[in-house]
Amino acid sequence: MSKNSNKSTPISEFGEFGLIKHLTNEINIEQSSTIKGIGDDCAVISPNAKNSVVSTEIFTEGVHFNLMYFPLKHLGFKCVTAAISDIVAMNAIPTQILVSIALSSKFSVEAVEQIYDGFNSACEHYHIDFVGGDTTSSLTGLVINVTAIGEANSQELVYRNGAKKNDLICVTGDLGGAYMGLQLLERENEVFKANPNEQPKLEGYDYIVRRQLSPLARTDMKEHFFSREVHPTSMIDISDGLASELKHLATESNCGCRIYEQNIPIDDQTKQMAEEFSINPLVAALNGGEDFELLFTIPVSEHDKVKNDPNITVLGHVVEANEGVGLMTGGGSLVELTAQGWKTPEE
Amino acid sequence: MSKNSNKSTPISEFGEFGLIKHLTNEINIEQSSTIKGIGDDCAVISPNAKNSVVSTEIFTEGVHFNLMYFPLKHLGFKCVTAAISDIVAMNAIPTQILVSIALSSKFSVEAVEQIYDGFNSACEHYHIDFVGGDTTSSLTGLVINVTAIGEANSQELVYRNGAKKNDLICVTGDLGGAYMGLQLLERENEVFKANPNEQPKLEGYDYIVRRQLSPLARTDMKEHFFSREVHPTSMIDISDGLASELKHLATESNCGCRIYEQNIPIDDQTKQMAEEFSINPLVAALNGGEDFELLFTIPVSEHDKVKNDPNITVLGHVVEANEGVGLMTGGGSLVELTAQGWKTPEE
Repeated sequence: MSKNSNKSTPISEFGEFGLIKHLTNEINIEQSSTIKGIGDDCAVISPNAKNSVVSTEIFTEGVHFNLMYFPLKHLGFKCVTAAISDIVAMNAIPTQILVSIALSSKFSVEAVEQIYDGFNSACEHYHIDFVGGDTTSSLTGLVINVTAIGEANSQELVYRNGAKKNDLICVTGDLGGAYMGLQLLERENEVFKANPNEQPKLEGYDYIVRRQLSPLARTDMKEHFFSREVHPTSMIDISDGLASELKHLATESNCGCRIYEQNIPIDDQTKQMAEEFSINPLVAALNGGEDFELLFTIPVSEHDKVKNDPNITVLGHVVEANEGVGLMTGGGSLVELTAQGWKTPEE
Repeated sequence: MSKNSNKSTPISEFGEFGLIKHLTNEINIEQSSTIKGIGDDCAVISPNAKNSVVSTEIFTEGVHFNLMYFPLKHLGFKCVTAAISDIVAMNAIPTQILVSIALSSKFSVEAVEQIYDGFNSACEHYHIDFVGGDTTSSLTGLVINVTAIGEANSQELVYRNGAKKNDLICVTGDLGGAYMGLQLLERENEVFKANPNEQPKLEGYDYIVRRQLSPLARTDMKEHFFSREVHPTSMIDISDGLASELKHLATESNCGCRIYEQNIPIDDQTKQMAEEFSINPLVAALNGGEDFELLFTIPVSEHDKVKNDPNITVLGHVVEANEGVGLMTGGGSLVELTAQGWKTPEE
């Protein structure tokens, strides 16, 4: 599991308190709002803005990630990204994280160091502080829980419930890449299991592999909106796929949505891989998830501000609630969208 | 597993989003600082005090709890208690929690309802709001992560690092009960596994069983200190046992500790059960953990304020760092205390 290190020190050599000290002794504090980080019963935070926003996300081995091909450092980074993405979706600034981790006996100190390297790299990238957590053992498999904290003043916050009829429905970046990257990695992993001498064939697919293994939260968009005087009326991040996020926005805003197939931004690599798998790329975009792009609505009067923006694509518009959440296909038929969540796997 | 209900609805009948809605639709908001609870990307909190305090705790099946004898509702309540206890140990007021839960397929909707009943009862008991979380699946076993949030003004906060030489070392309540309750429940569970017709023998041990299954965080102590003008110089909650918490205080405060065996408060039921198991009750108090009492130091000048307080016991006093963390036994010998943390179990 530990690629970058030949050493494999059992955690028992450090013990719980020794391990925590070892893992956290180089953590820097960057945010002025962090009064006390790791080392007491709680972190102490004195927010600079009126409101704190808080979100928590849990990741379990075998459900959210497969350690056969997911590098531990990337995993640590991605868990932070997923949590930070919720902060960004409120139009807030992420400031701190707390991380809980449950480890089974297969993890060496070096393996845990790699996960923490991921947490620390993410903190550096997002300019946030790692202020607390909990480390424990698990009988089976790795579990990571990230709690993210951010701040915003009341007039900056964007909720899911503010979409109004005729608002434009917009999205950042492109969709479906993380899902097709996952399919590719799963396929190559199966090939590897069948023949361990076979090298994974990932050439030409660096973008979608990166979308799966090292996605980034759109922390750039708050400033982007501000500088262009774009005022989202509702917003959500795309962690479960466009379809289910649209349905969340519609439910919370008590409205319907019309989006247009030809508008959905899909990268060429995503399309190509979908073709290899005989999957409609639209399905990857609608139900794939983990793209961590932002789905938001803006007043139709702001159309000019976004229409030539390479970061933003207009997907459609808000309609009455009784019109439902629908996709107009290229062929001109209206398809009602359904949301997918997780199901409990068989034990 | 589900004692109070004959129904066993598979979670797949609800799906992820249906389950979350079903579990959270009766949650009340009590704190004025809660601007937005469950239902958006983040909870929004506008603290009434200058500082927010945040802590996170993870609990894994088979490590922290055994569902053979731990009722699900009690489990939900206890996980919240453990997280709240960290807030209390900062001398802050708990205000909100976020809960992540990973469920394997053995859990029915009714079983999850019981866990949530526990979360909700704890919120009611502690007057805190349940403002967010994450629900997902796990391949094996139940995982619960609770993030607790509280608030305090700067002058109220009590850290681990404020103990000064000659300060009195004090503790609330009594110690070792939760540990001996665990031993009793484990023993009766073994008897039950050998003969399922055998009823567990818990009579006469209601106190220590309660200490294990439904402990309470000392949310009463902040007001207690305030009204009696007691000013803790350092504080920590006892979740891992007196010995390791003393060592944490000593390390953070750069001091040593002397406590006296005959001062350690141990309930009669704890002593009696320890005798049945041929365990020294002192070991239960020093290394047992999960009592969620508060360990704190006060200036020696405040001795009169606590000496007749039934809630508080003076254990000893703070000494120089080079004198170490020691226990003076009844027999008059000085024993250096060692801390115990978790070890990773074998898979």
